[in-house]
Amino acid sequence: MTAAPVRYLTGITTTGTPHLGNYVGAIRPAVQASRRPGTENFYFLADYHALIKCDEPARIQRSTMEIAACWLAAGLDPQQVFFYRQSDIPEIPELTWLLTCVTGKGLLNRAHAYKAQVDKNLAAGSDPDTDVTAGLFMYPVLMAADIVLFNAHKVPVGRDQVQHIEMARDMASSFNHLYGENFVLPEAAVDESVALLPGLDGRKMSKSYDNVIPLFAPPEQMRRQIAAIVTDSRAPGEPKQVEGSALFQIYQAFASEAETQALRQAYAQGIAWGEAKQLLFERIDREVAPMRERYRHLMEHPQELEAILRRGAEKARERATPFMARLRAAVGLRHLAMGAAAAPAKKQDKAALPSFKQYREADGRHYFKLVDAGGRLLLQSAGFDSPREAGQSIAQLRQGRLDGLEALLERPAGVAEAEVMAALQQLAQAG
Amino acid sequence: MTAAPVRYLTGITTTGTPHLGNYVGAIRPAVQASRRPGTENFYFLADYHALIKCDEPARIQRSTMEIAACWLAAGLDPQQVFFYRQSDIPEIPELTWLLTCVTGKGLLNRAHAYKAQVDKNLAAGSDPDTDVTAGLFMYPVLMAADIVLFNAHKVPVGRDQVQHIEMARDMASSFNHLYGENFVLPEAAVDESVALLPGLDGRKMSKSYDNVIPLFAPPEQMRRQIAAIVTDSRAPGEPKQVEGSALFQIYQAFASEAETQALRQAYAQGIAWGEAKQLLFERIDREVAPMRERYRHLMEHPQELEAILRRGAEKARERATPFMARLRAAVGLRHLAMGAAAAPAKKQDKAALPSFKQYREADGRHYFKLVDAGGRLLLQSAGFDSPREAGQSIAQLRQGRLDGLEALLERPAGVAEAEVMAALQQLAQAG
Repeated sequence: MTAAPVRYLTGITTTGTPHLGNYVGAIRPAVQASRRPGTENFYFLADYHALIKCDEPARIQRSTMEIAACWLAAGLDPQQVFFYRQSDIPEIPELTWLLTCVTGKGLLNRAHAYKAQVDKNLAAGSDPDTDVTAGLFMYPVLMAADIVLFNAHKVPVGRDQVQHIEMARDMASSFNHLYGENFVLPEAAVDESVALLPGLDGRKMSKSYDNVIPLFAPPEQMRRQIAAIVTDSRAPGEPKQVEGSALFQIYQAFASEAETQALRQAYAQGIAWGEAKQLLFERIDREVAPMRERYRHLMEHPQELEAILRRGAEKARERATPFMARLRAAVGLRHLAMGAAAAPAKKQDKAALPSFKQYREADGRHYFKLVDAGGRLLLQSAGFDSPREAGQSIAQLRQGRLDGLEALLERPAGVAEAEVMAALQQLAQAG
Repeated sequence: MTAAPVRYLTGITTTGTPHLGNYVGAIRPAVQASRRPGTENFYFLADYHALIKCDEPARIQRSTMEIAACWLAAGLDPQQVFFYRQSDIPEIPELTWLLTCVTGKGLLNRAHAYKAQVDKNLAAGSDPDTDVTAGLFMYPVLMAADIVLFNAHKVPVGRDQVQHIEMARDMASSFNHLYGENFVLPEAAVDESVALLPGLDGRKMSKSYDNVIPLFAPPEQMRRQIAAIVTDSRAPGEPKQVEGSALFQIYQAFASEAETQALRQAYAQGIAWGEAKQLLFERIDREVAPMRERYRHLMEHPQELEAILRRGAEKARERATPFMARLRAAVGLRHLAMGAAAAPAKKQDKAALPSFKQYREADGRHYFKLVDAGGRLLLQSAGFDSPREAGQSIAQLRQGRLDGLEALLERPAGVAEAEVMAALQQLAQAG
């Protein structure tokens, strides 16, 4: 028997071009992590988030392409993980609204990112909300929806993002309190060992410092940029310090221990900066070159990228759509013929629920069907090899999840999909 | 030549049971207004709004049914108008997010409903945001999305709601400023003549005063409630005042001028309160009775109501979906193969656009086709009687609107719907 998988979820805001710092600090470890057994991994292009800080449409589109191509080129396998674009999942903005309604405004007032902007405004003698958009203020709610829609257990984040995960927990738990246990409470997974890469000027590599080396720059550009990394003025032959050397730190992020040790020694022996930079370029290129072809191919074939993202969205929505149906039913956005409120009766009558019937046919295979309260057939299954398999499918349907079962189920003519969904919701509600 | 229709939009929050005050003040005038020539009318059940103030799922479901049944029983024709449930339109929460990102938080800080709650908290010595949910705070953004998604020109509201319409204008105009002219700027349509019905106790009939008479109460209940309307203690035979008489005012809201005049005279002549109440009951019943059967039928057939609402949502989404596609493209949530960003070229190349070709066949009919930049067929039209009709369809498609044309267009095998949408978006963007 295997334990239920632990779900990890990571969002990538689509406003920039991936650089070496992103690769070392986020992409490479995430791609490795995506292969851990016993986990399910969700990676999404957070383009709704991008709208908060970016009103340049072409930049968002271009960044979405670059980031998608980059993660795929770096080895992310869309078959193995859930890889999708946020704006392809209409359940996300819908859930954002549902969570908005259970979130105290006071909680959002305390968000660090919002407060930092307010403090800045106050220090400048301005109105506290100057240049604060509702998008910045509501950001934690959108982020909570991203996470809890897939009932993620763990969200790998930097220390500065831990508060947002705590806020997502708060929202999930308010919702559970009002409407029953629907959400797993997510936890931040802070990895203190994540490498922070220095940039050209020695400060953290970051677009806001304009000191980045794009991951998929053409080799000649990358060589020129590496040549521009700040060093001290020691001449060839003079021993050099590895402490505080951005060049050394970047090398270390790509090299094996033995390679790192060799460079350390070369520093002590007075390697020329030009030579050290050439070593760095070669070491990075050795890792990046095999990915570059795939990246270029994807960038030149946006239709292909688009198709990968759409398939990813379909896969994600196999989870999101039935779960959202359950959440909608929980808050009262229901098929009108569903359950209690349809009749003015005070109590839900057990006998008035749809039900599953499991049985064996003469062919020796195991079947089930879903019938409504009046005995009318709503769904007919194909044959299963064992009663256990049939039972597992029923258990999944009872949670309102159809994903993967569509091919095994037949809906008789005259039965609307909405009726089936309403019946499943009714069962999910009745527990 | 006819002018473009003026679009009116009205939302009804689904938290209560319609009463005589709603009928006289909102439903009856709206149903009449829905028949005005030269207008398009949108009425929707605002169940996302209901979530802001109501965490009782069964009440929201029940109220949705009652309100839908009530409007239909009162004569609203879903063929003639757009009648839908807000939560059936996923474009609404999505647009809410897009607008959230262009809305200054300061604008929302100034909303009367929010400020009233803050003032109350401050007066009580509490934290200003005590018991304020993010839902209350964000309400104006959701309302703006409701309105501008359908580019409504006029929103009939009470004076207390005028500010919200002004806020919707502000949001629409910020969006237009950043992303081009996409939205009509809506206007409030305040009708000062709307009748305010007094309730059982003489104050305005309102659920919050617990003084309402449900519109579709069984006749005996309505008779008992009318008997409970507050009057003074004048005995039969004593002349009575019409001024300040709740009974008289309610009568007037249902009666013709001649009938009203007759009751005024009866008051002067000392009609007994019991007799006047009987007259009132009969007058109301005369108007309500013919609707009661339809109401009861719908309440007993929730499947039928559900089907009406779903058809309404389909009709509304024929507008909302293509418009949303255009808005998504405007902000940068684009098909990756779309337009400028697909190639690293700096400028949009006119020659790289898809195009429409219009031509005449040997059968004498007029056709058009949509081809991509490389000449590949994306859409083929059926034959039109005149080149003008074909041209009108092309003009509509250029705006990204497919509604009503589906049956006239064929997509060749191997062409994905997304490709067609991307091509139309590209044309809409290019102007």
